[in-house]
Amino acid sequence: MSPAHPAPAPQSGRLTVVGLGPGAAELMAPAVRAELDAAQDIVGYTTYVELAGPFRPDQRLLDSDNRQELARARLAFDLAAQGRRVVVVSSGDPGVFAMAAAVFEVLEQADDPAWHAVELAILPGISAAQAAAARAGAPLGHDFCVISLSDNLKPWSIIAHRLRHAVDADLVLALYNPRSLARPTQFADALAILRERRAPETPVVLGRDIGRAAESLTVTTLAALQPEQVDMRTVVIVGSSLTRQVARAAGGQWVYTPRWCSQTRATD
Amino acid sequence: MSPAHPAPAPQSGRLTVVGLGPGAAELMAPAVRAELDAAQDIVGYTTYVELAGPFRPDQRLLDSDNRQELARARLAFDLAAQGRRVVVVSSGDPGVFAMAAAVFEVLEQADDPAWHAVELAILPGISAAQAAAARAGAPLGHDFCVISLSDNLKPWSIIAHRLRHAVDADLVLALYNPRSLARPTQFADALAILRERRAPETPVVLGRDIGRAAESLTVTTLAALQPEQVDMRTVVIVGSSLTRQVARAAGGQWVYTPRWCSQTRATD
Repeated sequence: MSPAHPAPAPQSGRLTVVGLGPGAAELMAPAVRAELDAAQDIVGYTTYVELAGPFRPDQRLLDSDNRQELARARLAFDLAAQGRRVVVVSSGDPGVFAMAAAVFEVLEQADDPAWHAVELAILPGISAAQAAAARAGAPLGHDFCVISLSDNLKPWSIIAHRLRHAVDADLVLALYNPRSLARPTQFADALAILRERRAPETPVVLGRDIGRAAESLTVTTLAALQPEQVDMRTVVIVGSSLTRQVARAAGGQWVYTPRWCSQTRATD
Repeated sequence: MSPAHPAPAPQSGRLTVVGLGPGAAELMAPAVRAELDAAQDIVGYTTYVELAGPFRPDQRLLDSDNRQELARARLAFDLAAQGRRVVVVSSGDPGVFAMAAAVFEVLEQADDPAWHAVELAILPGISAAQAAAARAGAPLGHDFCVISLSDNLKPWSIIAHRLRHAVDADLVLALYNPRSLARPTQFADALAILRERRAPETPVVLGRDIGRAAESLTVTTLAALQPEQVDMRTVVIVGSSLTRQVARAAGGQWVYTPRWCSQTRATD
């Protein structure tokens, strides 16, 4: 869809939740770019709406602060129910700790038949964990889990319970929302759980703003990791017992998790 | 990089492992498309090399059967060490049960300094689980795990152990390589583990060839799921205790996992 020829409003509205990927345009799916170009209204957290641009003057940008996911989803349904073509933007994958779940929460609770008649679609994106993993090597190369450490919407006891099981299952862990100023001690608590049963030399990858201008990648170990190295914009990938390091040609280390277990090392 | 102006071979070779995403060109990252266009040699499983095309006559296609991951990775290093610009293709994300880990396995074992001098990069892609999740709604909207049921490279006892912990942690599960002709009974064994502790009405999503011409999406429940519905090209997503269904405007059901736990339902 060319920016010079915006699509006319469809008969009934359309709401698409799109994933921008980690931030760089070169990692955004062409389907997402086309949907953004065809949108009349773009709804999202201000930072992500800016990442999704530039937009044409005829496109309306309805950006808002973070932590207003449900209000944003309701606005999007309101507009789409009026016949507008609406895109809700998320960074990463909208289906992973992002706007897609909020949109369905709102839809399920809605009484308005017009909201339920909206044409709805989700377009995936490359998640922050995948972007960090690719820069680091292949730490998610075998069985892994993705867990948010935010206790805004779930009690810490459940988070701790999940971490213990993930460690006992020897899964690689990708941890989102690891540490905020509002709960400075919880990441240390999470680290204590991980250190109880995983070796000190376990590789840890810290990916911050990967795919954006200020990106940084740190490779460390479970023993050396300090909570102060981590904030809300960091994805923390903690290796399994099998995760390994290999020297990079340009210096530093790659981190990867092989496809085999020790009993079954591949030799094809 | 324009196809009409292929890049000259760099001084030292370059090996890039790229993720094609689920299959449709509209879900492939532009960075991957550019790397494919700039490649001199394209290495991969025949099906994926075909998905990655079309290529120019001056580009060499080195495709091979599946299950030859290590041989393919060695070929790629051999070519890159000669100064060639080489791309190894994976479907989905190369970092998730795919070629990136195989490339690092080969690199770690290699004695040849020329292999270790190769400029190496991994470009991520949208995984099969993400593509299936987006078509289904947002089943991966909260904490989840990604587990391969293939026992080619790990014993079944480890797979069963991981499934039990994932269920006890109440994680959503995305299961890869769920059922092959060589091990027809194991998926039933996995189902038995899941059914022991997760409710019969737990939503299950079956995504097969999502993003390709023959794509199919099935929404069912843990009680109704039959092993015969599943093969190696199916991703199986099993909900947590919180995963829910919502009616679609066009008929059928969306499946999503809310961001909240029952104690902390969001009301913003």
